[in-house]
Amino acid sequence: MSTQLSETALPHFRSDTHGRPDIALLRQAPVFHELDDRLLTRIGAVSTVMTLPEGEQICRQGDPAEHLFVLISGQVALSNAAPNGTSAVVEVIPPGGHFLLPTVLARLPLLMNAHTVTTSRLIAIEAEALLGLLQVEVSLATALLRAEALDFRRLVRQVCDLKLRTTAQRLGCYLLALSKDQSTNTASLRLPFDKRLLAARLGCRQENLSRAFAALRSLGVETHGSRVILHDISRLRDYSEPDDMNDVEFA
Amino acid sequence: MSTQLSETALPHFRSDTHGRPDIALLRQAPVFHELDDRLLTRIGAVSTVMTLPEGEQICRQGDPAEHLFVLISGQVALSNAAPNGTSAVVEVIPPGGHFLLPTVLARLPLLMNAHTVTTSRLIAIEAEALLGLLQVEVSLATALLRAEALDFRRLVRQVCDLKLRTTAQRLGCYLLALSKDQSTNTASLRLPFDKRLLAARLGCRQENLSRAFAALRSLGVETHGSRVILHDISRLRDYSEPDDMNDVEFA
Repeated sequence: MSTQLSETALPHFRSDTHGRPDIALLRQAPVFHELDDRLLTRIGAVSTVMTLPEGEQICRQGDPAEHLFVLISGQVALSNAAPNGTSAVVEVIPPGGHFLLPTVLARLPLLMNAHTVTTSRLIAIEAEALLGLLQVEVSLATALLRAEALDFRRLVRQVCDLKLRTTAQRLGCYLLALSKDQSTNTASLRLPFDKRLLAARLGCRQENLSRAFAALRSLGVETHGSRVILHDISRLRDYSEPDDMNDVEFA
Repeated sequence: MSTQLSETALPHFRSDTHGRPDIALLRQAPVFHELDDRLLTRIGAVSTVMTLPEGEQICRQGDPAEHLFVLISGQVALSNAAPNGTSAVVEVIPPGGHFLLPTVLARLPLLMNAHTVTTSRLIAIEAEALLGLLQVEVSLATALLRAEALDFRRLVRQVCDLKLRTTAQRLGCYLLALSKDQSTNTASLRLPFDKRLLAARLGCRQENLSRAFAALRSLGVETHGSRVILHDISRLRDYSEPDDMNDVEFA
């Protein structure tokens, strides 16, 4: 690729960069889905595509946010470390997701660390250039306002989950969400990441996650490593009481 | 007040409405702090000031969001009910705060119920009119993007709190936040709402809150009803490990 990359477009980690993203790649991300070609071309001109290996730190809590990231493939964990060194996984971003948007928009130091869970392909969009575009592109502001709103609602659900549900119920809701496209009463699925990370995401210790899996066994949840079979979805649903409002359906 | 109020500006609850807010009243809210007089006049023209009694439901989970609310005085609790009827208090909005912003911007059904904890004075801003203004007013979009970002970060802290800290530590952090203006090692403060609501906000049962207060007694936390005296702030801080990043200081 012959495009010249600016200094700030190249975060200092072990990455293979692949030049600018094209319009089609940007539009794959829901956050940019509705934007027209002209605007996506402008965003692409301040963006870089990169591939990072598993376990790579992308950014560090407390640092300024220099990029908005969009994840094309792979998985990225966002975590926050308490002063005593314990760490909470706030979210695991799936392909198509973005991260650091509120921090870029508020021009505040990063609240969270981000690291790749698996080999990941990302688009890094320069924060200052994006903020500049925002001043003149109303449709970009509208798209980002909506994206921030959906991110906020996802976090509200997580707060409610943590306040209202037991670990076993939270695990049940998580498994149901993974199998939501099933129209039958059974499902076979694969956990998208290891149980250590799953425990951190659910906000429990690993031994509590094991206990939660054991509690769900009597409700027809069978596990073999990362493979999970749900034998009775309606019973699991009755027990876990998942939130019945789904933003994806409403959106 | 002689101003004619439109139908959608008047939610159907027991309220004393007091016409349109003036520019100075709107600007008291941090979300509108930076906006110029011209824009605030436009926002004021689609807003209504109202006073609601204690315990009044303002809006209901699942309904469309017809207004963005700014709280001038009083307190409003935002809660989410699970299918089994148990309810989690996600936030208690203090004076100057706003609520329902992400839901208005995403044009999605409300995730939460809102009710007044005490007699409250509010500004209700018509959602559709606000969304219309957003299409033509870049500085409004910028202000709302920043407000959403700060709301998001507050919720990230809460998720981390729930995942990383015990109930006693969460209570400690809460008490420290209430006394953050103290430069000495002691503080006397008043809980802004009752212990039932405090337990729900912290995500615990009332008996666990009592246990948490008991646990903090040995750290110099003395309580008399809603009055709390902190005798040794630095010791309470060591125990509770509050987040050392403060958006207000950075903002």
